[in-house]
Amino acid sequence: MDYLHGGDIYSVGVSNIVDFSSNINPFGVPESFNANINEALLLLTKYPDPHYRELKQGLSLYLKKYYEVNFLREDLLLGNGAVEVIDIIISFFKNVLIPVPSFSEYESSARKNGAKVVYSSLKDDMSYDYEDIYKKIQFSDVLVIGNPNNPSGNVINKDKFRKILEFCEKNNKIIIIDEAFIEFTGNIEESFIKDTEKYNCLVIIRALTKFFALPGIRFGYAVSKNIKFLEELRGIQLPWNINCFAEVAVKYVLKDEGYINKSLIWIEEEKNYFPQQLRKINFIEKVFESNCNFLLCKLNGINGQQLFNYSLSKGLLIRRGNNFIGLDDSYIRLAIKDRILNEEVIRIFETYYR
Amino acid sequence: MDYLHGGDIYSVGVSNIVDFSSNINPFGVPESFNANINEALLLLTKYPDPHYRELKQGLSLYLKKYYEVNFLREDLLLGNGAVEVIDIIISFFKNVLIPVPSFSEYESSARKNGAKVVYSSLKDDMSYDYEDIYKKIQFSDVLVIGNPNNPSGNVINKDKFRKILEFCEKNNKIIIIDEAFIEFTGNIEESFIKDTEKYNCLVIIRALTKFFALPGIRFGYAVSKNIKFLEELRGIQLPWNINCFAEVAVKYVLKDEGYINKSLIWIEEEKNYFPQQLRKINFIEKVFESNCNFLLCKLNGINGQQLFNYSLSKGLLIRRGNNFIGLDDSYIRLAIKDRILNEEVIRIFETYYR
Repeated sequence: MDYLHGGDIYSVGVSNIVDFSSNINPFGVPESFNANINEALLLLTKYPDPHYRELKQGLSLYLKKYYEVNFLREDLLLGNGAVEVIDIIISFFKNVLIPVPSFSEYESSARKNGAKVVYSSLKDDMSYDYEDIYKKIQFSDVLVIGNPNNPSGNVINKDKFRKILEFCEKNNKIIIIDEAFIEFTGNIEESFIKDTEKYNCLVIIRALTKFFALPGIRFGYAVSKNIKFLEELRGIQLPWNINCFAEVAVKYVLKDEGYINKSLIWIEEEKNYFPQQLRKINFIEKVFESNCNFLLCKLNGINGQQLFNYSLSKGLLIRRGNNFIGLDDSYIRLAIKDRILNEEVIRIFETYYR
Repeated sequence: MDYLHGGDIYSVGVSNIVDFSSNINPFGVPESFNANINEALLLLTKYPDPHYRELKQGLSLYLKKYYEVNFLREDLLLGNGAVEVIDIIISFFKNVLIPVPSFSEYESSARKNGAKVVYSSLKDDMSYDYEDIYKKIQFSDVLVIGNPNNPSGNVINKDKFRKILEFCEKNNKIIIIDEAFIEFTGNIEESFIKDTEKYNCLVIIRALTKFFALPGIRFGYAVSKNIKFLEELRGIQLPWNINCFAEVAVKYVLKDEGYINKSLIWIEEEKNYFPQQLRKINFIEKVFESNCNFLLCKLNGINGQQLFNYSLSKGLLIRRGNNFIGLDDSYIRLAIKDRILNEEVIRIFETYYR
């Protein structure tokens, strides 16, 4: 069986599995959501506001507080998960440039809509090849790029990216920056949110999925100052695409400072600790530099299939690299979880040769 | 301000409104959902099963129990609300036949995808013009038809529809039957679910929205024995389009016999009572025969705008007919609610001339 995405615990057929294939904040659902679940239950029998006015206000407040940018209702596009936002934006373009390896849904959306896809391979150290991107964007309409990228964990180098940004702004090309994991960098400066004020070509994707540990709730959004483009996109969206539980989640978790702060402390610690320990494992040749909550590893003397099977036999689910374009079965991706679980992975890996 | 759909209480700007514009079961959220909400909370931090195996099993059991048809996983298509299912199906066709007046999203989906839309007007008594549909389907790829229809409440006459069904089956045309309100007819024989066994051209749309009073949860689905067509549709769907609360709702409310039975008793009573009372109102010229939980009314001596404003001043939201194709502002649509609220409407209407 092949796994297109991480987190597919259902196809594995094993219960009580520790899922390191899915990169979700280990603190789990913010208590501020659970505490306000009754508000969602009261909304159930009503159709959502077609304009999601209160929800958008919540997003605006969050973005104002952390990024000091004012986003009005017109600057926001909402989706039933980030995949819906990504899909609707990509569906507008006929020539799509995608650095690889990356999240497979970028390419799926492009292909589904009959677009031509051009790849820009990451360098050997898994950083972006900015020169190659600059060359190839000349012949594309849109660049879809992760910040940080998945599965490699690298962020965009703002200095090196500037030339691409300026070119796209001048030549009416769109840059979609997928910042689904950006909060895990712990550094607001890494985000391109503030750059939207200067660059209309930028569309930034965010979600509640990863940092707020809510993949089941289905909520993602895009922000951009290209109001005309967003208006066009909203025009083809279906009404009521956000459920009432997601509405309530946005309202509470984005202002849950306790959850945000403890998560930042955790990731800062484990981002240092876990790779160090993994580098001591004899079949791990390399752990790539990551700025977020997952680690791409290169294997040596064992392939992904073998390590997957062995790990699964120990109750651990890992993500193989074999179906990422530009990777092969000598790569795996591991989530960073809490200290106890990270150590569990280390223990399981250590016992492999014994 | 114009209201494209019922239930847009957010644009009205009045709180504590009694919403007769939105046709939701007045029993509200089934207790069987609330009682199992913790199951959904536990699912929040996991991505949903990309194949929604358990959810589909729940649907199959329900359809087997009430309609005696076996639907396998391949026979089901899931959507983030019925609108998503309708949209993805309609997007496949270039010539769409729609009886009118009807739910505006049929046409929106067709237009968005650049399809040509042909109308078949309902007859004066708001029944379908089967001869006209038969003539026009010859030049269309797909028929999108409500059963019961919204806003008129009429069901399809199976005898008269047979000729259209046979023709579409033989000529590879698709018939989308929107049965979002079918449970309110109280008669399983009115549904075309069982006919899918004989007719591959049939695709039936259902939802939790109306009968189970869960518009906020966003869940709709399609059933068909045209496996190849559904497979193609699933191929262009985005992953994880159903949230975990909808998953849990399907699991419990569809087998909630208490809720289903009390709802059937209520609608049977009020479907007789409310129209009788409305017919006594002097500005209501006609209440059309309805087989479900809403009533289309023709006004006389007052227009929809005037009655809308008057009703709103009394805390009552009604649906004007003016933006339904084929109707005008001499029509309104009213939901059927419980006896107390229905009587409240009668009282408000009675006082209009005093």
